[in-house]
Amino acid sequence: LTGARREASATELVERLLAGERLALARLISLVERDAPGARQALQCLYPSTGRARLVGITGPPGSGKSTLTTGLAQALRAREQRVGIVAIDPTSPYTGGAVLGDRVRMMALYADPHVFIRSMATRGVLGGLARHTLDVVQILDAFGKDVILVETVGVGQDEVEIARAADTTLVVGVPNLGDGIQAIKAGILEIADILVVNKADLPGAARLVTELRTMLHLSPPSPAAWVPPIQETVATDGRGIDDLLTQIDRHGAYLLASGAGAERRAGRAQRQVRAIVDDRLQRRVGEVLARADWAARFARIAARAEDPYAVAEDLVSEVLHDGD
Amino acid sequence: LTGARREASATELVERLLAGERLALARLISLVERDAPGARQALQCLYPSTGRARLVGITGPPGSGKSTLTTGLAQALRAREQRVGIVAIDPTSPYTGGAVLGDRVRMMALYADPHVFIRSMATRGVLGGLARHTLDVVQILDAFGKDVILVETVGVGQDEVEIARAADTTLVVGVPNLGDGIQAIKAGILEIADILVVNKADLPGAARLVTELRTMLHLSPPSPAAWVPPIQETVATDGRGIDDLLTQIDRHGAYLLASGAGAERRAGRAQRQVRAIVDDRLQRRVGEVLARADWAARFARIAARAEDPYAVAEDLVSEVLHDGD
Repeated sequence: LTGARREASATELVERLLAGERLALARLISLVERDAPGARQALQCLYPSTGRARLVGITGPPGSGKSTLTTGLAQALRAREQRVGIVAIDPTSPYTGGAVLGDRVRMMALYADPHVFIRSMATRGVLGGLARHTLDVVQILDAFGKDVILVETVGVGQDEVEIARAADTTLVVGVPNLGDGIQAIKAGILEIADILVVNKADLPGAARLVTELRTMLHLSPPSPAAWVPPIQETVATDGRGIDDLLTQIDRHGAYLLASGAGAERRAGRAQRQVRAIVDDRLQRRVGEVLARADWAARFARIAARAEDPYAVAEDLVSEVLHDGD
Repeated sequence: LTGARREASATELVERLLAGERLALARLISLVERDAPGARQALQCLYPSTGRARLVGITGPPGSGKSTLTTGLAQALRAREQRVGIVAIDPTSPYTGGAVLGDRVRMMALYADPHVFIRSMATRGVLGGLARHTLDVVQILDAFGKDVILVETVGVGQDEVEIARAADTTLVVGVPNLGDGIQAIKAGILEIADILVVNKADLPGAARLVTELRTMLHLSPPSPAAWVPPIQETVATDGRGIDDLLTQIDRHGAYLLASGAGAERRAGRAQRQVRAIVDDRLQRRVGEVLARADWAARFARIAARAEDPYAVAEDLVSEVLHDGD
């Protein structure tokens, strides 16, 4: 009976969401973040209403001005009467369940705008699920009717990279004279960049960073038909370059459509989403099996070197796989 | 036949490793990092020879001087004639297969010491395995006869936290006036700290950070028998505080032994190691199933909103679980 009531309530929330009710949006996101009963059913219900929003990832190291850039993009999009969702991932708090807004004070003005919805997500501790939760939240915002969803991440770690790869268009943000930042770009994050942003372009060293990036792009020449990531300079704090950046995002959107790369990318996203759901299910199943038998004793035996972890893992995999649910 | 030869070679490598041959150490680590055939069998062979080394995690944000601190600790341990292993995780290069040493120039002197072995590991891209690979490398160093193994991470992301939690003693390093660093400590990374290190303690703001940390520690009072993390000030660049830090690490080691917390922690480590191996196996299995049937078409259907990812994930889980291997 309680289950039935819950299902009704999730369905009702979806209906209210699709009718444009902002409160339903916030409640559904909370359900999904908590993996509450009904959350999955709700996501399944609203899935056919998704696929319209453009998902733009903004990835860069701490100190690159990502938040300011995101704010600037959101403001420029609002000037074009686009409805905007912002999802910010805060990596500095792996243990906290809540969200830390940090230096996102500049976003305050946006909070007052009814056509902007901002969600700051904390990373979710050891068992993960961050990528899945983030993509779920993106889907809810999509179904709600957002035209553009900006997802801000630091681009470090598995979940983060997964999120960045899910975007239609990924901006990789670098700044002059930030050792780690340039290194990150050099090390290969270039591969996920559709647009390279050199923020704080008024600082000395900006021209050099642009040159370096251009050289790196030329070192790995793409096939003739493929997209060559443009390098856009911005000064996010005073809005310089933001409109041009938006134009580049539009250009990339047109390319995705014309080339068929967009459909391919979305199929890739679907695959990763399915994998994330599957991983989560399998993790839970491992947890269930571990809760059942006397595994604790076996872990103590491993610690005492009376067994080895590989043999125990073998047994655990067998139980997980061949043991009906 | 090739398989048999490979197995023989892995066994031989293990024998040479246990005989103290440094070249075998490097080769085994490479095998394990590449998930080469025989790697698992080698790990299984050498497992009974592990469990002797102390594993010390050094976790802190970029800029906290972790590498310098690690170098200082290694030098102090060498002065006590301890054999040292260092494993440094570089998070700035999620895509690169190689390792970036970054600002670890200070470690150069250690490279010349035959009783120090340093391995810099790059994070391994989307499919992960970083935590598992790192703990495997730690085990090889342990079997090789290292007395202390220092594992340096930035403490952000799932894998990183998992690695930090695997240590016998975890140092969390903060520095004065580094917004992110203090925030990270505040946000809950405190929970994994056995010893708090305030590095760059000669900077203004150090006393305040110590006071803040002390206040936070008092806000969550531990049970009377439990360990209260000491706060150790260091100036890693000139070695100040390093000997005291080593004394704190020894004190914590004695506590682990006397209280039984050490055995508990090692059982926890065994459990996480088993889970990491299991996760890896399940991931591979998912990959195998995905390679078989015509899943690509289903992902395209999801992208076109003709199916939803939850239903497809359900089917995939069923195939993974109920399909003999």
